[in-house]
Amino acid sequence: MLGEFELIRKITKSLKLPSSVLIGPGDDCAVVRLCNKKRARQASSLHLLTTDMLIEGKHFRRDWMTSREIGEKAMRVNLSDIAAMGGKPLFALVSVGLPKSFRVSEAKELFLGLRKAAEKSRTAIVGGDTNRADRLTVNVAIVGEAGRFLTRSGAKVGDAIYVTGTLGDSVLGLAALRKKKKKGYEFFIRKHFCPPDRLSVGLKLAANRQVHSLIDLSDGLAGDLEHLLKASRVGADIWRDKIPSSPGFIRKAEGLGLDPEKLQLTGGEDYELLFTASAHVKIPPKINGASVTRIGSILPGKSGNSLKGLTGFRHF
Amino acid sequence: MLGEFELIRKITKSLKLPSSVLIGPGDDCAVVRLCNKKRARQASSLHLLTTDMLIEGKHFRRDWMTSREIGEKAMRVNLSDIAAMGGKPLFALVSVGLPKSFRVSEAKELFLGLRKAAEKSRTAIVGGDTNRADRLTVNVAIVGEAGRFLTRSGAKVGDAIYVTGTLGDSVLGLAALRKKKKKGYEFFIRKHFCPPDRLSVGLKLAANRQVHSLIDLSDGLAGDLEHLLKASRVGADIWRDKIPSSPGFIRKAEGLGLDPEKLQLTGGEDYELLFTASAHVKIPPKINGASVTRIGSILPGKSGNSLKGLTGFRHF
Repeated sequence: MLGEFELIRKITKSLKLPSSVLIGPGDDCAVVRLCNKKRARQASSLHLLTTDMLIEGKHFRRDWMTSREIGEKAMRVNLSDIAAMGGKPLFALVSVGLPKSFRVSEAKELFLGLRKAAEKSRTAIVGGDTNRADRLTVNVAIVGEAGRFLTRSGAKVGDAIYVTGTLGDSVLGLAALRKKKKKGYEFFIRKHFCPPDRLSVGLKLAANRQVHSLIDLSDGLAGDLEHLLKASRVGADIWRDKIPSSPGFIRKAEGLGLDPEKLQLTGGEDYELLFTASAHVKIPPKINGASVTRIGSILPGKSGNSLKGLTGFRHF
Repeated sequence: MLGEFELIRKITKSLKLPSSVLIGPGDDCAVVRLCNKKRARQASSLHLLTTDMLIEGKHFRRDWMTSREIGEKAMRVNLSDIAAMGGKPLFALVSVGLPKSFRVSEAKELFLGLRKAAEKSRTAIVGGDTNRADRLTVNVAIVGEAGRFLTRSGAKVGDAIYVTGTLGDSVLGLAALRKKKKKGYEFFIRKHFCPPDRLSVGLKLAANRQVHSLIDLSDGLAGDLEHLLKASRVGADIWRDKIPSSPGFIRKAEGLGLDPEKLQLTGGEDYELLFTASAHVKIPPKINGASVTRIGSILPGKSGNSLKGLTGFRHF
């Protein structure tokens, strides 16, 4: 990890937080009590806060994506953090830094993309800030609500580990773009541009008391699993041959000279959900349209092959 | 106004908003109902949402300000938006884009500055996002609360117009930095780096039912007064000779060959409060340590010398 990133993690973790903060920095969202304390024990009376910044050249390239796609992705990666706690999004704030070369029509498309993703999830864009920048920069902050919520620190020894959807598609799409091989990779490129909407899945998981922990896969399976295991102080046995792939994924990865398994373990930006639940509970193979696959078990302490040492996803 | 800025204003204003949004885009904060509707009629059960992004080279220069000063300013300009609605800040989210040249010690200083301003106002930093960027970028989003809140659209014909503090200091400090004349301008440079904390003044104003409208001065008196008049559909008579100045301001401005009145009318980043109140109500000359000066009256329609046509503040 880069020095200042680790440092900031330490500083923010050391902040003195009031009792109204149930979960502070370090999870996908903060969880806070904004309403009357008595009512806060009822469903939907806790609130989730999250923010994510996307920067041109670091998170996206303007010659690869349309402005509308950039807007849509900026909103969706933030919504993914709400899904990762089992919450429901309510309000969004959007700050943008627009380069001088950005045309008025592009600014409009960017906002239409942001609005499209917001409206689909019934999130109201209530405010923002527009600035000049050298590189296109889009920051979204979301306020959501939750009754029961899930964190990355609740995994229990004996839990089964599941993921939604398929892994590695987004990073394969990115690799195809880098190698200028769009033809035949349209599906994967689309997955890279448009993270899945797992909000309804997250809500359903949070409502199930046998589900113990939840995280979204933004940094890659190995990295995000490591975050969950560290926060839950447990180990894991991962069944590598069970990691779900899209049809044609292995062939298409090998077609670019890439190791499909490595893409799935360390490639980032899947924005699928990783969760753990009591092994004796039946988890359906599909939840609200998303396939669900068991990929391993939670073990005690630091035991198991937790994919440790595999490098997580790094942006460009 | 730049084309895309105006366009985004139009797009955001055209958003369909749910009934839980009392004030949408266009004011200093959005005002939303996050808690039970019945309770929302009580004090402190409405919430304020605001965000502001500061970008190196546009809003600040790293060779002029320390990292700690940049962090403190980023938090304070956001807190000013909460003050401008008469609210109280609760939680902050911070996203940063850090250049490769940024040292670990500088990242630490940046966060200590953010934390200093947050702690002073009892705002809890509950989360954030850390990225790589070419230019240092700091985005803050704040959730606040309000019982009665004030907007820029409530000014009434006959109201007296007031400002807090003194105007033009920040832009004079900026001019001194640009002209490399720090000596003798330390006070003004400090004002440019460190916006005043007007949270307690905003709260006091919001509690007074004779105060009708409120805005903070970020773009300069002429520009922000124009925002308030437009939103309230009124005109104004401004007493230019009553605009409050710091001791030595006129002499120091002239020392740099600048027109002091122009600095006060069009210079930005004062972050003082502009408010209107019934003319027959006694407003004390000092509120919580901030001087308060009457600078004019609200007139009907588009009458009066509302400073129209004076160019507002533009960043570098």
